[in-house]
Amino acid sequence: MFNDYAEIYRNNLLNDIIPFWLNHSRDSEFGGYFTCLDMKGQVFDTDKFIWLQGRQVWTYAMLYNNVEQKQEWLDFAIHGASFLLANGRDDAGDWYFSLERSGIPLTQPYNIFSDCFAAMAFAQLYKASKNEEYKTVAVDTFYNILKKKNDPKGCYNKAYPGTRPLQSFSLPMILCNLVLEMEHLLDADLVNNTINEGIDKVMNVFYQPELGLILENVTPDGKFSDSFEGRLVNPGHSLEAMWFIMDLASRKGDTELIKKAVDITIDTLKFGWDEEFGGIFYFRDIKGYPPLQLEWDQKLWWVHIETLISLIKGYYNTGDERCLVWFKKVHDYTWSHFPDTENGEWFGYLNRRGEVLLPLKGGKWKGCFHIPRGLWQCWMVMKAIAEKQERSNLIKA
Amino acid sequence: MFNDYAEIYRNNLLNDIIPFWLNHSRDSEFGGYFTCLDMKGQVFDTDKFIWLQGRQVWTYAMLYNNVEQKQEWLDFAIHGASFLLANGRDDAGDWYFSLERSGIPLTQPYNIFSDCFAAMAFAQLYKASKNEEYKTVAVDTFYNILKKKNDPKGCYNKAYPGTRPLQSFSLPMILCNLVLEMEHLLDADLVNNTINEGIDKVMNVFYQPELGLILENVTPDGKFSDSFEGRLVNPGHSLEAMWFIMDLASRKGDTELIKKAVDITIDTLKFGWDEEFGGIFYFRDIKGYPPLQLEWDQKLWWVHIETLISLIKGYYNTGDERCLVWFKKVHDYTWSHFPDTENGEWFGYLNRRGEVLLPLKGGKWKGCFHIPRGLWQCWMVMKAIAEKQERSNLIKA
Repeated sequence: MFNDYAEIYRNNLLNDIIPFWLNHSRDSEFGGYFTCLDMKGQVFDTDKFIWLQGRQVWTYAMLYNNVEQKQEWLDFAIHGASFLLANGRDDAGDWYFSLERSGIPLTQPYNIFSDCFAAMAFAQLYKASKNEEYKTVAVDTFYNILKKKNDPKGCYNKAYPGTRPLQSFSLPMILCNLVLEMEHLLDADLVNNTINEGIDKVMNVFYQPELGLILENVTPDGKFSDSFEGRLVNPGHSLEAMWFIMDLASRKGDTELIKKAVDITIDTLKFGWDEEFGGIFYFRDIKGYPPLQLEWDQKLWWVHIETLISLIKGYYNTGDERCLVWFKKVHDYTWSHFPDTENGEWFGYLNRRGEVLLPLKGGKWKGCFHIPRGLWQCWMVMKAIAEKQERSNLIKA
Repeated sequence: MFNDYAEIYRNNLLNDIIPFWLNHSRDSEFGGYFTCLDMKGQVFDTDKFIWLQGRQVWTYAMLYNNVEQKQEWLDFAIHGASFLLANGRDDAGDWYFSLERSGIPLTQPYNIFSDCFAAMAFAQLYKASKNEEYKTVAVDTFYNILKKKNDPKGCYNKAYPGTRPLQSFSLPMILCNLVLEMEHLLDADLVNNTINEGIDKVMNVFYQPELGLILENVTPDGKFSDSFEGRLVNPGHSLEAMWFIMDLASRKGDTELIKKAVDITIDTLKFGWDEEFGGIFYFRDIKGYPPLQLEWDQKLWWVHIETLISLIKGYYNTGDERCLVWFKKVHDYTWSHFPDTENGEWFGYLNRRGEVLLPLKGGKWKGCFHIPRGLWQCWMVMKAIAEKQERSNLIKA
């Protein structure tokens, strides 16, 4: 069975997603990638968002490093990296949020995740190319992130100081993944400290045992804030974070931590699943109040593929049958709703009923990242489960 | 017929909307109003948003000035105004965006519309109370708006200077209404200059004759920008602006301008109407590309009530039958979808199919403003049409 699953994920990755972006997203004139692609892959807007430029560099470098050393993939990653190096940063080394097609800055560096995805891109590309410049950029950017992490928005922060100080889940969560991405470039102590701090933040600060869920924003001392921000649950975020935690826990050999991550995965799915129409909600208010996010009931591609990773990793690591039951449910929903079998790639934004809300393959936030990463992760884990099962069958026979 | 319509709007205003907010939104402990009210009117969040505080002060002062001099209404407006005076501004006189329940600032004054609605509130309340302090605050705030209007976001602006300078429709549009609201407090030349500039901006800069539509953002010289911001159409904004323009045109006796506003009203409705499920879309991309706004297909209360005002004013001023045909269509959609006949008031946010998306009567953006203003405006115009028809029937008879 797991070989059949693996084939679905491998085939979609290699024969649909990878060629789709190779064929449609290259900007041969100015460098970098187009990411605003319509249903058929035609470019409908030429702005370049640093999140998505970095993530696409990362994707093709990762494929080169982990799937096959195809020169075309490496060249495509370098194509994006060169554009980023030439245009992406201001004088302080902060990464802009977006650029015009030609590379002129369009939106100021107000968003620390631009830095995170740039660091991730250059760290992965250094692995593939051994170009020292990429290493330097990755490491400099990582240190810059650490420097800014307690005030990530800087002068663009609109919160009045001191009234309702909240810490936000996104950055500690991303750091849990980024630190493993950068492990080969960083001092071992820094890696271990960042890992331990990341696990502590996710599992002891943002995870609220009495709720069984992770909150997007908590007070500085990790308490619940009864406010719009404080009541917000982003199930996709929580679910994505659980495979980051499982990866860190595997590295440490901490089986209890993996089990805890599995429990949170299941509890989050129970809370986030739409019993009426299927799929996982984008946002929910922990008290059931109306959230601020008008898009709260939509079904997004990244939420579902990230969930599949956590479920399959949970099953691989623990054998917990709940993971398998939920995996099948989320797998069926995902594959019957998101992929566009006619034009290739996946739709990103569905309404609550699972109908296409925006007929695009890429935009300001959807690029070449979650789907290929998720397909590769699931494929690898499924292969490992199948191999484990074969070995176990051999022993029995 | 118009007397029957008028009765619907009058009755809903006086017997549902006005008592709903009187009963549910008063914060007797800290002052000001709660605006986050659930389906039954229960408070689910206590943050105070300056937009909505100002708008509610305006509403009850306006009702006192125009409907009936009820002490309860004036007191309720003053209740909100006192809270705003005590807590709403920073040392520079800029209005915060939001406050905690007690009045402590929560979100910095990054949003010039806080100032606009505060000015509108105090100008209207001065009319009702003749309290000179209100006049001073209104006038000071108005001048502050004029001072900031070319750089309304100030240091919170994330656009990189010079790359894609765009002017935005919202502020000129609001000024077209605000200047009439403040006419009794301002020098006649300033009023006339502001009116002429507002009309020019709306009708000659943001209105694009070759498209037949108003764009939300254009280049500094009024040209189309082929970008997400530049392609954005907000039909509700355009439709609301058309009755502001009709009011200004009536004041000037400019019948050609009224006709032009009617044409834009009709063209915008044709573009913004959802032929499949009815109702007016929240956002559309002028080229039909996927917009950034994930909520683009939702049906919002303010869009529909503001449209009804423009249509009925258009009919009253021109007798154009298209206004009446569309008025009936939008009226029927509005009254069969938004009002909550069980618990009172209107739902604010419906999905594309017209089903309730957020079961709230008030929140961060929906307060006590568009519905009462629109009900009152429609009621008055309907009464005037009915009277005109009666006079005309008398002459015939």
